[in-house]
Parts: sequence; structure tokens; C-alpha cells
Amino acid sequence: MTLKERIVRRAGTLFYQYGIKNVSMDDLASSLGISKRTLYENFRDKEEVLLTYLAGKRDERNNKIVEVINRSENMIEVFLYLIEYHKNKDLPSIKFYEDIYKYYPRIYKLIQQDVENNKIHIKTYLQQGIDQGYIRGNLNVDVAAFLVEESTYTYIRAAYLEKPPFSFQQLFFTMMVNFIRGISTYKGIQIIDDYLTNKTNENN
Amino acid sequence: MTLKERIVRRAGTLFYQYGIKNVSMDDLASSLGISKRTLYENFRDKEEVLLTYLAGKRDERNNKIVEVINRSENMIEVFLYLIEYHKNKDLPSIKFYEDIYKYYPRIYKLIQQDVENNKIHIKTYLQQGIDQGYIRGNLNVDVAAFLVEESTYTYIRAAYLEKPPFSFQQLFFTMMVNFIRGISTYKGIQIIDDYLTNKTNENN
Repeated sequence: MTLKERIVRRAGTLFYQYGIKNVSMDDLASSLGISKRTLYENFRDKEEVLLTYLAGKRDERNNKIVEVINRSENMIEVFLYLIEYHKNKDLPSIKFYEDIYKYYPRIYKLIQQDVENNKIHIKTYLQQGIDQGYIRGNLNVDVAAFLVEESTYTYIRAAYLEKPPFSFQQLFFTMMVNFIRGISTYKGIQIIDDYLTNKTNENN
Repeated sequence: MTLKERIVRRAGTLFYQYGIKNVSMDDLASSLGISKRTLYENFRDKEEVLLTYLAGKRDERNNKIVEVINRSENMIEVFLYLIEYHKNKDLPSIKFYEDIYKYYPRIYKLIQQDVENNKIHIKTYLQQGIDQGYIRGNLNVDVAAFLVEESTYTYIRAAYLEKPPFSFQQLFFTMMVNFIRGISTYKGIQIIDDYLTNKTNENN
């Protein structure tokens, strides 16, 4: 791992946990045991660190999707792989999202553009699933693609609950499985229900 | 209809369309062709009008649910009736929600309490659906109840889209049908898919 990569990875961990405003370039340097000077030789400012981190996350996610599509038999398998892949990932604190919204409007705009691009991809995948006979043909794919991207905001709202009666992992899993099951034909639902049955057995 | 009812109904229409801040007690009185004095004889202030309006809406909704439950054979039918009932209802403008959030914190709190109460009811209905064999037993009902109530916020977020590629009716319908289909057993899905097939035929 290069120093640049080490910096970005550590920054990501700290931002996720404490938000962005609360983590100074000083904090970041000392957390890595490097001088502030070395840090600034690699990145102009905190915004550049954040931008590099987010771009890396986006590429990682997109590469994962391409990899999963290449080894899957159908779109339902793709979605289930992605659920498995994401379900135990750490999710950022609310402060992370709030800080981007409040203090980094340029980055917030970039994220919104990403969301719009994602919707285009999701629509293509949904259409492939329909053509394969795994997703129902009467689905409004524009609404469905919107709902997939909205799940992030549902997560954010859940973080504001005073006493959530579920974990974020449970929320993510139920929300995603339920969504895919809702859009699937019988052929697709069979795959999902087999997956759920195996899960239940695993946990016993 | 009593004068009080007429006032509340007109206020609701105006609030839904223009938000609450933009509609003065003067506007309301003149829109009804009554004097401001008469208006104030019936309601102390705008907040009281708004509160009465929202309480009426809540009672109407709850009565509808009880009525639908009494004449339905199972919980899937209940949900489908409620989708039919709501799908062509006017939805308030974003300003309506924003104004409550910004200017009526007391009412905002009451709405949040309503949401919490709704979740308890929804959980009961979901459990009944599970007992009847129409809703899958491996569903996390806490998450599911949360997701039903979240749909309002998804609608609010959709209203901020610059160029939504769907109508609000399409959003509501797809979101709700997909949710119910996701939580249903095969027995339940059959009812939903018959309903969707009939819909498609109606529209041709």
C-alpha cells in the first residue's frame, strides 16, 4: 500500500466514525504517525482527501458489480451476491452524511451525479432481469431504480430513531431482500426463498 | 356540513396546495366568503385549524382501515384495498411538510407520535397476515413497519427531484405493491398478481 493509499484509508475510517468536520488534518497526520508536512505533500486539503476516498469507494463498488455480474447466472443472483457483500460492511455515522451536505456542497453535488448514474445502470440491470424472466415485466423500472437509491436515505432516517427496534444490518437485509422479492417473478422468488432458507439454517 | 367543517376542509385544500405559511387567516376567511371575526369565533388561530384538519385526516384514515379489515378475507386484500383507496388521493405539496417542520414543532411532534402508533398497528396487521399464511414468517416485522411509514419520506424526497421520470401516483403504486409482494407468501403473491393482471386489462 502506498502512503497515499494509507492516508485515504485511515481518513475514511475516521470520517465514517466521527464525521468530517471533527477530524482535522492534524488528527489525521498524528493518527498515521506522519508529519503534517508529509500529509500536505500528498493532499492539498481535507476536501481532496475526502474526494479521493469517495472516488475509491465508488470504483470499488462498480468493480464489484461487474465482477459479480460476470460470475452470476441471472440478475437475482447478482442482487443476492451484492446483499451478501454489503450486509456486514460498516456504515458511516450520520455526521458523515451531514457534514458532506453542510460543508462540502461540491462533493454533495458529485454524489448526486453518482446517484443519477447509478439509476441508469440499475435500470439496465432490471431490464436484463425482465428479459431473463426473473423480474416481472409489469414493473415500473424508473420507480424501482429510484427506490434502490432511496434506501440510503431510509438508512439515514433510521439513524435518527431514538430507540431503533432493529440493527442496521437487519434493516439493510430486510429492506433489500424484500425489494428484490417484490420485483421478482416466481422463478426469481424461488431463488430468493432458497437463499433465505439456507440463511435460517446457517443461523441455527 | 357545519361551518367549522367547511372551514377545516377549505383550509386543508389551501394548505395542501400552497403550504401553511403562505395562507393567512385573512385568505382563508375571504376564500370562504366569511368575515375574519366569524373565523376567529370558530378557531383561536391557524395552528388550531391545522390541528383540527390533521386530526380529522387521521380519524378518517383509521376508520377506513377498520372498515376495510371488517370486509376483507385476509391481510393482502386489506393492503390492496388501501392502495386503491389512496392511489388517487391528492398529496400535499412539499411546502406543507416543510412548514409543519419549520413553524409548528408541536404539531410535528404529534405527527411523529402518530407515526409511532401507526407502526404498532402495522405490526399487528403484519402478524395477522403471517398467522393467516399470507405473509412470510421469516419477515422482520419491526423493519417492515418502519419501511411502511418511511414511504412518506420517500415521497417527500421524490418531490425534490428535478425531473422525476414518473408521476407520484406511479411512485406510490409501484412502491406499495412491491412492498406487499415482497412480504407475501406464494398464496399472497397470487392475489396480488391477479390484481395486477386485472389492472393491466382495465387500462387497455
